Amino acid sequence: MRFFEDYAPGSVHELGSVSVSEREIVEFARRYDAQPFHVDAEAAAAGPFGGLVASGWQTAAMTMTLLVEHFLDPATSLGSPGLDELRWPAPVRPGDTLTVRVTVMEARPSVSKPDRGLVRSHIEARNERGETVMTVKVMNLVRRRPRADPVTRA
Amino acid sequence: MRFFEDYAPGSVHELGSVSVSEREIVEFARRYDAQPFHVDAEAAAAGPFGGLVASGWQTAAMTMTLLVEHFLDPATSLGSPGLDELRWPAPVRPGDTLTVRVTVMEARPSVSKPDRGLVRSHIEARNERGETVMTVKVMNLVRRRPRADPVTRA
Repeated sequence: MRFFEDYAPGSVHELGSVSVSEREIVEFARRYDAQPFHVDAEAAAAGPFGGLVASGWQTAAMTMTLLVEHFLDPATSLGSPGLDELRWPAPVRPGDTLTVRVTVMEARPSVSKPDRGLVRSHIEARNERGETVMTVKVMNLVRRRPRADPVTRA
Repeated sequence: MRFFEDYAPGSVHELGSVSVSEREIVEFARRYDAQPFHVDAEAAAAGPFGGLVASGWQTAAMTMTLLVEHFLDPATSLGSPGLDELRWPAPVRPGDTLTVRVTVMEARPSVSKPDRGLVRSHIEARNERGETVMTVKVMNLVRRRPRADPVTRA
């Protein structure tokens, strides 16, 4: 199990990679972000990105799949209060494979709720051409390791 | 058509509302954010939110549907470089209906690309109980209104 105390500031975590197809890009965007450059390959070719690109929300959600699999622990993850400075410096295109790296920036015990702490991490997603497609600083609430019973330790 | 010049700083836009079902919450989360409190009603009942809640990424994506329908114009929207200070102060639960308001904070012409400008907006999403479930400051690139031909105007 991975507790709050296991998220060491400065530690770097390579979370592997995730790919996206044209079908997945169009399906996601039809439901949540139906702009022409996300849902219509022909219109997208004449649009600002010169072709179909993934919704930035899908890029974020794809990155989340790797955080859930390889960084957060279902037994200790208590959700997120939010995030800061999300940037999409390059578009994600059909067939792209994103590789995700997380660096723990800070781990601070909660004052009001002693069972948990706040972990702040910097996430970077790169495509197979080495271009950074997303960066973001996220917050996660994580359960602290229970203290051993002093009686048992005596 | 809505051009960059039509996003007036200080203007407030009510974008209507959007609802989410338990099925949609679980479907989204199974694909992108499969934490117990997003995908498993029984585990969620004993979890940090006392029941199933939507992935914060889905809350953001639901809000995006309203921006695409009522705030951005497919003919002038050129994508987004990113966002800042996204917060999820309260969870979204099955059956919730979110009402979304956007306030334009700033509209700045691009120096490097004279065909567009950057619109910065503050988005607030509230549930039917009046609780704020998400706030975020987003950036959007928007095409500027073409200048009329001086000959035609003469």
